[in-house]
Amino acid sequence: METLADTLQELLAAQHWDELKTFLSQKNPIDLAGVLPSLPATECALCFRLLEKPKAVEVFESLEIDDQQTLLAGFRDEQVRDLVEHMSPDDRAYLLDELPARVAKRLLRMLSPSERQATSLLLGYKENTAGRIMTPEYISLKTYLRVSESLHKIRKIGLDKETVYYCYVIDEQRKLLGMISLKDLVLADPEGRIGDLMHREVVAVHTDDDQEVVAHAMKKYDLLAIPVVDREDRLVGIVTHDDVMDILEEEATEDIYRLGAVAAPEQSYFKAKIFTVATHRVGWLLVLLLTNTLTGSIIMDQNTLLQSVVALAAFVPLLIGSGGNIGSQTSTVMVRGLALQEVTFSNAFLMLLREVGIGLILGSLLGAMVVIWAYWLQGDWLVALVVGCSLVVISTIATFFGGLLPLIFVRIGIDPAVVSAPFISTMVDVLGVFTYFQIARLIIFR
Amino acid sequence: METLADTLQELLAAQHWDELKTFLSQKNPIDLAGVLPSLPATECALCFRLLEKPKAVEVFESLEIDDQQTLLAGFRDEQVRDLVEHMSPDDRAYLLDELPARVAKRLLRMLSPSERQATSLLLGYKENTAGRIMTPEYISLKTYLRVSESLHKIRKIGLDKETVYYCYVIDEQRKLLGMISLKDLVLADPEGRIGDLMHREVVAVHTDDDQEVVAHAMKKYDLLAIPVVDREDRLVGIVTHDDVMDILEEEATEDIYRLGAVAAPEQSYFKAKIFTVATHRVGWLLVLLLTNTLTGSIIMDQNTLLQSVVALAAFVPLLIGSGGNIGSQTSTVMVRGLALQEVTFSNAFLMLLREVGIGLILGSLLGAMVVIWAYWLQGDWLVALVVGCSLVVISTIATFFGGLLPLIFVRIGIDPAVVSAPFISTMVDVLGVFTYFQIARLIIFR
Repeated sequence: METLADTLQELLAAQHWDELKTFLSQKNPIDLAGVLPSLPATECALCFRLLEKPKAVEVFESLEIDDQQTLLAGFRDEQVRDLVEHMSPDDRAYLLDELPARVAKRLLRMLSPSERQATSLLLGYKENTAGRIMTPEYISLKTYLRVSESLHKIRKIGLDKETVYYCYVIDEQRKLLGMISLKDLVLADPEGRIGDLMHREVVAVHTDDDQEVVAHAMKKYDLLAIPVVDREDRLVGIVTHDDVMDILEEEATEDIYRLGAVAAPEQSYFKAKIFTVATHRVGWLLVLLLTNTLTGSIIMDQNTLLQSVVALAAFVPLLIGSGGNIGSQTSTVMVRGLALQEVTFSNAFLMLLREVGIGLILGSLLGAMVVIWAYWLQGDWLVALVVGCSLVVISTIATFFGGLLPLIFVRIGIDPAVVSAPFISTMVDVLGVFTYFQIARLIIFR
Repeated sequence: METLADTLQELLAAQHWDELKTFLSQKNPIDLAGVLPSLPATECALCFRLLEKPKAVEVFESLEIDDQQTLLAGFRDEQVRDLVEHMSPDDRAYLLDELPARVAKRLLRMLSPSERQATSLLLGYKENTAGRIMTPEYISLKTYLRVSESLHKIRKIGLDKETVYYCYVIDEQRKLLGMISLKDLVLADPEGRIGDLMHREVVAVHTDDDQEVVAHAMKKYDLLAIPVVDREDRLVGIVTHDDVMDILEEEATEDIYRLGAVAAPEQSYFKAKIFTVATHRVGWLLVLLLTNTLTGSIIMDQNTLLQSVVALAAFVPLLIGSGGNIGSQTSTVMVRGLALQEVTFSNAFLMLLREVGIGLILGSLLGAMVVIWAYWLQGDWLVALVVGCSLVVISTIATFFGGLLPLIFVRIGIDPAVVSAPFISTMVDVLGVFTYFQIARLIIFR
């Protein structure tokens, strides 16, 4: 990357336009997209003018959405129209979505009628649905076509389509009848009929299916593209493989943020304003802070107990800390298991039981160690015993709630990933302190 | 899924073999793979015998590794050989890896010489490298071939290859010269020469590159396959798109587990024995427990301070809890940012500064609230002020270490995801308690 940017700047500084043009034409569009936005605005616009049109579009499509916006603002109108007109409809819909409504409208008006129609179709569907992320540019065949005729059709119109590797077979009402891959077509007898060769069991999604459903179906069946049908089973578009990996990554990021008690951001965290980020995080912190005030109240209630055995206070952080850690482990494993469908409703109860069992084992192991250490620290066997027993009970409670809550949340339709490490730690803080003092009363003040 | 299993069992119970055969031939192999293992062993083996050979192999390849092992144990030798001989080399290498060495050897001996060679080649590379996950079955072309001759070659040998969508151009020494897609071939003039049409800038990986590198390259450049070359730049295999999504998911799972302080498991957590799982988790817990004993020591040291102001003890869980939560948020965002390469060494310092700034803002906000609440709970303005100031300091410390540690770990070559929520909470426990008592001494015992 370093050298690519350096060479570009050297060529720009030397004003060797022909050399620059050749250089740009040889580079991978995705690598160029990684470098161009870091150039000054005029030089970046200049590079775009030197790129051949199809490649310029490819580079533009590979840019981050905010770099696209900055660039468009600096371009002249014809250049903007040229770029946006040739973008694939799904990438264009995504861009228009993010632009201020006024700019988006003006852009939409610049497009040719057919491209405008394709874009408006996508913009009519809700965000993050199959309808929004699909492209209406696919190859459709009819059952009566011969293989040779189909290949001829692909040769004629293939260049404009987002993928030619999967072709879809439809009837007069555009109902999806089957699919045939380019591999099948190339390997088949040229005289064969599509209707005889096509696969009839086609995995398809509906326009209003969530993008997560689309990605998981494509991943499960190892597809390069998936057809999108409307409520009357008419083919309206396809989602191609390049979108799927982005979606899967986006979903993983969302889960990871939730597990860290961070609200999933609209844009990259590392580009958002610092106060926006703070407001995104303060919500959960407030809830957890308020919950944690309960811990304080419980401890204040035990004022007299604490005054007579001050040593008890020393072990509070250790107990609730370990409990929180054990609980986070359980909730992490449960949340990921639910996301990958390894935990389902049929085995949920068993999995919960397993986790509680693990909690008992871990609590007993760590509890035994802690008794010895607690005695060594303050020399009272009774207090040491209280600490050890508490750890066993707290660890069991932590695994129980760490396992149960994600299941409950999924059941009532909330993303289970909200059962984050901070969430479960705070909950264990409250329950743990309460348990600890109850056990202390039982053992020390029998 | 329900109905598929039901229909299968009805047909099996009725012993309608012909109907069952037709039924099986119509179903998607991946759906069958989801249902067959749940049948009794003999009925499952029967279904496999009724499947046509290529489909049986496809179903078998789609099974989980432990189901594959169980099935193989129940099959007769010819059936085992038939299945394993026709598996694709990368899936077969993965299976052989997991089998007991004795069984794997016996299986390897059953294979035909060419298949045995292909498998041994893969098994010679380290686990999780490009060499291990590639397949040696790809289409190679020469520069002097015409498009029509190339398509003829693909027709002749294409059926046995894992993908025909990307073809690779090599010279006499098998050195990689370029690539051409099936789309290019179909759309090109039949008389054109491969050498003139091929793309010369090919993104390739080395046999010993990590599978993560492979997946990220394929994702970045939206590839359907990526060529794998050895140290002399000779083409030895390709990795296809179906493997990438599994790798990306595996990597996300590993990160999520690490962030939850759970050691990444060899096999699914939900199938491992309960004691295995406990041993996987106890390691981190022990480290964190030992660290947390420091918190206890610090509190014991403040015995006299605590005895005179017992109210101080009540706010320990709240302070270290909030600090831990703020720290986990920061480490989560940092770790994910590093994984997605949004945080790099060039912007690391700025990002750290941002996080500390966010920590100050969050600490001040929450600190102001806590002062009021702490006064209301125990009626002493001085103690309330100590709690509020401590929260500001602790929150800043938490974001500093939550942001710094992942960066340090990446620098010294450790996965930054080990800076889990439990890790950072425990660290904040120790530092937080210490800070709290220092501030208490400063303010109350001036």
